[in-house]
Amino acid sequence: MSKNRLEAFSDGFIAIIITIMVFDLKIPENTSSQEPWIALKLLLPKFVAYMFSFLVLAVMWVNHHQLLHQIRHINGGFLWLNIHLLFWMSLIPFSTNFMGLNPFLPEADMVYGLIFFMNSLSFTILRNYAEAKKMLYGIYTDEFKRRMFIKNLIGVSCYFIAAFGSYISVYISFALFLLVPAMYFMPEKLEEEK
Amino acid sequence: MSKNRLEAFSDGFIAIIITIMVFDLKIPENTSSQEPWIALKLLLPKFVAYMFSFLVLAVMWVNHHQLLHQIRHINGGFLWLNIHLLFWMSLIPFSTNFMGLNPFLPEADMVYGLIFFMNSLSFTILRNYAEAKKMLYGIYTDEFKRRMFIKNLIGVSCYFIAAFGSYISVYISFALFLLVPAMYFMPEKLEEEK
Amino acid sequence: MSKNRLEAFSDGFIAIIITIMVFDLKIPENTSSQEPWIALKLLLPKFVAYMFSFLVLAVMWVNHHQLLHQIRHINGGFLWLNIHLLFWMSLIPFSTNFMGLNPFLPEADMVYGLIFFMNSLSFTILRNYAEAKKMLYGIYTDEFKRRMFIKNLIGVSCYFIAAFGSYISVYISFALFLLVPAMYFMPEKLEEEK
Amino acid sequence: MSKNRLEAFSDGFIAIIITIMVFDLKIPENTSSQEPWIALKLLLPKFVAYMFSFLVLAVMWVNHHQLLHQIRHINGGFLWLNIHLLFWMSLIPFSTNFMGLNPFLPEADMVYGLIFFMNSLSFTILRNYAEAKKMLYGIYTDEFKRRMFIKNLIGVSCYFIAAFGSYISVYISFALFLLVPAMYFMPEKLEEEK
Repeated sequence: MSKNRLEAFSDGFIAIIITIMVFDLKIPENTSSQEPWIALKLLLPKFVAYMFSFLVLAVMWVNHHQLLHQIRHINGGFLWLNIHLLFWMSLIPFSTNFMGLNPFLPEADMVYGLIFFMNSLSFTILRNYAEAKKMLYGIYTDEFKRRMFIKNLIGVSCYFIAAFGSYISVYISFALFLLVPAMYFMPEKLEEEK
Repeated sequence: MSKNRLEAFSDGFIAIIITIMVFDLKIPENTSSQEPWIALKLLLPKFVAYMFSFLVLAVMWVNHHQLLHQIRHINGGFLWLNIHLLFWMSLIPFSTNFMGLNPFLPEADMVYGLIFFMNSLSFTILRNYAEAKKMLYGIYTDEFKRRMFIKNLIGVSCYFIAAFGSYISVYISFALFLLVPAMYFMPEKLEEEK
Repeated sequence: MSKNRLEAFSDGFIAIIITIMVFDLKIPENTSSQEPWIALKLLLPKFVAYMFSFLVLAVMWVNHHQLLHQIRHINGGFLWLNIHLLFWMSLIPFSTNFMGLNPFLPEADMVYGLIFFMNSLSFTILRNYAEAKKMLYGIYTDEFKRRMFIKNLIGVSCYFIAAFGSYISVYISFALFLLVPAMYFMPEKLEEEK
Repeated sequence: MSKNRLEAFSDGFIAIIITIMVFDLKIPENTSSQEPWIALKLLLPKFVAYMFSFLVLAVMWVNHHQLLHQIRHINGGFLWLNIHLLFWMSLIPFSTNFMGLNPFLPEADMVYGLIFFMNSLSFTILRNYAEAKKMLYGIYTDEFKRRMFIKNLIGVSCYFIAAFGSYISVYISFALFLLVPAMYFMPEKLEEEK
């Protein structure tokens, strides 16, 4: 299995996941012509949920590329950990739909947060596996590795807190859903040991 | 991130956006066998809206390719501006559905026009960024740059006028929705400085 | 615009069109557990319509590849004629759904036939354009060209007859819907002038 | 037709089939805010059916790659046997939806099992065709060929038994649906004749 093929498959997968979410953004057929503004306003939470999910998926796509760019070769373990990541990604349209329909329902925010938690956890596992198996190009400083470890720990923890914090206040969840993609917006510059 | 990968991802994205719109073109299950012509006639606005959107997306695809063909390399800024463009493209199925259901509702035409406005604006921003950062092959004459600038200004403005002109008459919007793709049908021949 | 990119875009497009049709193959949520065999039997026409359309799209995919394989380079005209072909392809899920819901309704068979007619016509136009513009590798004998011309004429005509023959008997249409893919199952062996 | 193109097309196809299944995982719009846990619990069988199908498709994807990796060149026969395999794969979302809605209905498990049976049979036919036509790289020991033959026979038979065993007990089917992907999880190491 070549690296390029895995990358192309993951790309196609992510592209479809994003676009399939748009399919839920729909004006209800009956009400639209009578009160278009009300119909549009009712769609707002769905739209915001879509925007959040789009952002997270775009950030994951960019970081996934950087990981595959760094990697020398792939093996069966990496392949299946990548499929595992795609599985959790594939559930994002489900949680987005649930959250878009019920933005202020703690259960919906919990599901939304848990799916993101599993995504960031799967990504971290994938990354650590590649590092542990010495599959990455370049030798990174311990300082860099520690910083990456802490950053990933924060990201994963944020989603965990977001998932269960929704029972205290859904705004805790909303804030964390915005914070994490911001943290990962640009992949970390690679810092190699000299 | 290589140029090819970005191109392949954008292509897959656009292909899915187009095909997902077709999914809304559907004969209602109950009425079809009794009065097929009426059912088909009721679908006509949806079909026309789909045709318009197909045309715009095809034109954007062709122009997106020419831009990526011209470009030397990509950076983080270009990557995220491209993702920004894909975000607005991904909303086209939503606005197409809304407009197809309510072609003579000014609000629907406004949403349809605004999404196209954001698309053409995003595309212009992406193009200008690449030009400003000297990422394009070839050095273009000032005359060529000025012509491109004016053309893009007209395109973006047309969609803006189409969006709000619908409140005067939806036919203003319809005419402009046809005019802009016609303007961009073939990408501008490149004119390099000698 | 490179030939490879056009091919990859068309491939992605066709793959999505095929899979999107499957989405209409669905057991109704309520009736399924009570009378599963009746529910399955009601799906049969949808299933057969899907099989027909799958076959036609697969045949078009194979022939589209052979055409692109033969071609030296592409130009703006070829690009837009290919987009034109994709447009008609994209309507196949619509006509398949209509026909699957009402297999014995002449209007449904007419729409199904007309969409296939437009597809085969678009394909023939694309092929002839490439030939007329001398874009194909190899020089074909006049005998080969004549045979291809007649074959395409028969294919296109069959769909036209299928579309309107449904008003006499839908079985005329069914027979022709089966005949044409069989005719094009394997792309014609290339016969070059020596 | 190049091997790469067939691989890319099959990849795109499989990626779309997987993601399209997610679309059925949806909280019903009305009930969700009142009793979210009940709504989620009702989705559980759908979720499990999705997980099973995801796993099977992932395993088929990995094995399909290994097959194409081993292959020297493709011909018309291989091409159409591959399209035949994609056809049966494309029905997996249908059977998954049926089974997810009615997990304890023997008919649903039968359909689910039969579609997987046809998939594994199509895959075995594709593999054997390539082997019979000497299209594979390397010469395998008779011992290896026999082991592969038996393994494939077991896989295909398991699905057949799963399909009809559901009338005795649906748990027989469930166990076999889990067993087969486990058997094929990693493609067999190639053992060449020395």
